[in-house]
Amino acid sequence: MEPMLTVEEARARVLAHVQPLGTEAVPLTAALGRVTAQDVVALENLPPFANSAMDGYALRAADTDGASEAAPLRLRLAGEVPAGRVYAGEVGMGEAIRILTGAPTPAGTDAVIQQELVTVADGLVTLTAPVAPTTNVREAGGDARIGRTLVRGGVELGPAEIALLAALGAHPVAVTRRPRVAIVTTGDELAPLGAPLRPGQIHESNTVYLQAAILRAGGDPWPLGIVGDRLEDLEAALNRAQEADLILTSGGVSVGDYDLVKQVLTRDGDMAFWRVRMRPGKPVAFGMFGQTPLLGLPGNPVSAAVTFELFGRPAIRRMLGAAQVERPQIEVVYAGEGIPLGDRTHFVRARLTTHGATLVAHTTGAQDSHLISSLQGATALLVVPEGEGSVNDGDHVPALLLNDALPWGAW
Amino acid sequence: MEPMLTVEEARARVLAHVQPLGTEAVPLTAALGRVTAQDVVALENLPPFANSAMDGYALRAADTDGASEAAPLRLRLAGEVPAGRVYAGEVGMGEAIRILTGAPTPAGTDAVIQQELVTVADGLVTLTAPVAPTTNVREAGGDARIGRTLVRGGVELGPAEIALLAALGAHPVAVTRRPRVAIVTTGDELAPLGAPLRPGQIHESNTVYLQAAILRAGGDPWPLGIVGDRLEDLEAALNRAQEADLILTSGGVSVGDYDLVKQVLTRDGDMAFWRVRMRPGKPVAFGMFGQTPLLGLPGNPVSAAVTFELFGRPAIRRMLGAAQVERPQIEVVYAGEGIPLGDRTHFVRARLTTHGATLVAHTTGAQDSHLISSLQGATALLVVPEGEGSVNDGDHVPALLLNDALPWGAW
Repeated sequence: MEPMLTVEEARARVLAHVQPLGTEAVPLTAALGRVTAQDVVALENLPPFANSAMDGYALRAADTDGASEAAPLRLRLAGEVPAGRVYAGEVGMGEAIRILTGAPTPAGTDAVIQQELVTVADGLVTLTAPVAPTTNVREAGGDARIGRTLVRGGVELGPAEIALLAALGAHPVAVTRRPRVAIVTTGDELAPLGAPLRPGQIHESNTVYLQAAILRAGGDPWPLGIVGDRLEDLEAALNRAQEADLILTSGGVSVGDYDLVKQVLTRDGDMAFWRVRMRPGKPVAFGMFGQTPLLGLPGNPVSAAVTFELFGRPAIRRMLGAAQVERPQIEVVYAGEGIPLGDRTHFVRARLTTHGATLVAHTTGAQDSHLISSLQGATALLVVPEGEGSVNDGDHVPALLLNDALPWGAW
Repeated sequence: MEPMLTVEEARARVLAHVQPLGTEAVPLTAALGRVTAQDVVALENLPPFANSAMDGYALRAADTDGASEAAPLRLRLAGEVPAGRVYAGEVGMGEAIRILTGAPTPAGTDAVIQQELVTVADGLVTLTAPVAPTTNVREAGGDARIGRTLVRGGVELGPAEIALLAALGAHPVAVTRRPRVAIVTTGDELAPLGAPLRPGQIHESNTVYLQAAILRAGGDPWPLGIVGDRLEDLEAALNRAQEADLILTSGGVSVGDYDLVKQVLTRDGDMAFWRVRMRPGKPVAFGMFGQTPLLGLPGNPVSAAVTFELFGRPAIRRMLGAAQVERPQIEVVYAGEGIPLGDRTHFVRARLTTHGATLVAHTTGAQDSHLISSLQGATALLVVPEGEGSVNDGDHVPALLLNDALPWGAW
């Protein structure tokens, strides 16, 4: 029997079997959370023309030299330019143009004075101080210049990126197709959502968990229901699931008499691994089922969640073409009772908080692998290494952030 | 003219005008991101019955007293119980039952021995060590007991909460209705998404920004298009928008000649404020338009984003019944050039990172309010107070987290 892989070795094998999917164009109105298929470069300047930052009067700065309270300057009010219009003609010496915020500064002018700083009467604008060139003028291309990379390829589009692309007319945008992820749940003991429990049964929860987690990862979940512990039923479900980009199963990967996923993957597929030196989640299998990668998660809900996080989500992110496929790993200060080290890496569900500007992690409570409540409120997985001794209160420990807020963009 | 309100005063006025919406039941398959309308209490135990944590043999612990390598104990293999079944009858003294992970422990037994620790031959199970009571038995209700509050009201449901509710049969779940949020964008200078620019025009970006930001906040965006700078067009759009739970406008709230939203709100509505002592975003208006709350955001994209964040998102979260309507405020260490204080609270777009376990914030670059690129990659808003002096490299400053990862749940 092959020695158990480390998490890093197992993840490398998973990622070696998946590639980014094809590209499609989507309107910016449907681009939230999608991943750019390539760098998006500015084809226009933003703003497209020099424009006024204020409601006021556009003028030639040179005309205002020497203006003062003692020697006020009078400019002839020669016209008006609201936002959305262009002033026809060129502004001459001694002239000023009424201008509104966002309107293009007229040809010949190089500054705008705020309306609060002048008096206007009888067709004359009176200033009592000089105005420096470029005052209140937003230059063309000041936000983004033609040729600048606006958003790199492999970036998940949030509201800010979408606004920037819209402002530059980069619509629609090329994104990578979302992977369709089949979910096949196995186990004779499972009652489907909404069904009453028969004696000995439990409510199935991995399907809805995985649906939600796949959506959050950017994938398109395709739940195929619960399959009982019969080999032919499982094979039928997997044959159907082959149309997906990725198959997730739950259950049937341990050493028990009914651990059929492993049997199918060994017999009909090409198994890359089936055990990983981690806790929770040791029995996790991965291989190709025909042309489709298949990740066999444990049936235990907590083990399924943690192994999805460490192997399933990176596979989905790779298929999405995301530049960052893994959760960011940061350092935090552990607060709580000692956690003994063991013979497998332990992923402890934790809640992050802050003490001043320091990140502090508390566990979510009892960490037994059948306690679904240990997932609730978790914002990080503490990475407690193999070894002797323990992680103690005040120790610095690595943590996987279950949310990309740090240091990646979220807005 | 009323003195300008602080952000806190203005937000209190907004929140005083909005209430949680009604309740609806949704299936757990559609519950991701929804907010619980009330506490959800366990009506069953989880797990529903005592069950085996291992594949092995269920037995009476007392039978195994004194078993050793020298004096092995033999138990009679009296039956089998796979997951999903219940063993009929009671297990007697000197008997063992083959049991699989998750199967109910048979009546009469109080422990399970792992299959790896026994030998089985000729209908006999041989042990070489005693087994303590409760070994490998998961007690009924160990994860959640009947009557326990599983998820409090006002909590956004993530994958973990959905799994817990599913495992307890709490399906469907009562959530608060999502607010429908109308978006009315004003300005003659705006070209709609996909339209070429005419001279003097710019691409409109606030609608898609707000659509995405409303979705992220949990609302249901209803874009009503761009309205030109004509009072009757704006009134027509707002009359239609009154069917929404909240109206967001962008543009038309400054002191310019074309600032029509303020005029309409003053004449036809009931204006609660229209200026706030903040930067960016000073001109932001709020009031009731008929029975519908209306938040008038500035037209400037950065000002619109920041004022949505500070006033629009909390209004939506309150309507959603969320327990936490505001972004969490934490402390971070500022890294960068000095930021001079001014006469308004300055919300500086920043990117958080870590140095060891310390949270460090860098600005996203130039902070001029017309630079949409200043929003990109922002994970926090630094709250730079009014006053004299400056915020300098190494100073601890408050920051609003633009993502709820800390300290709230994200899994």
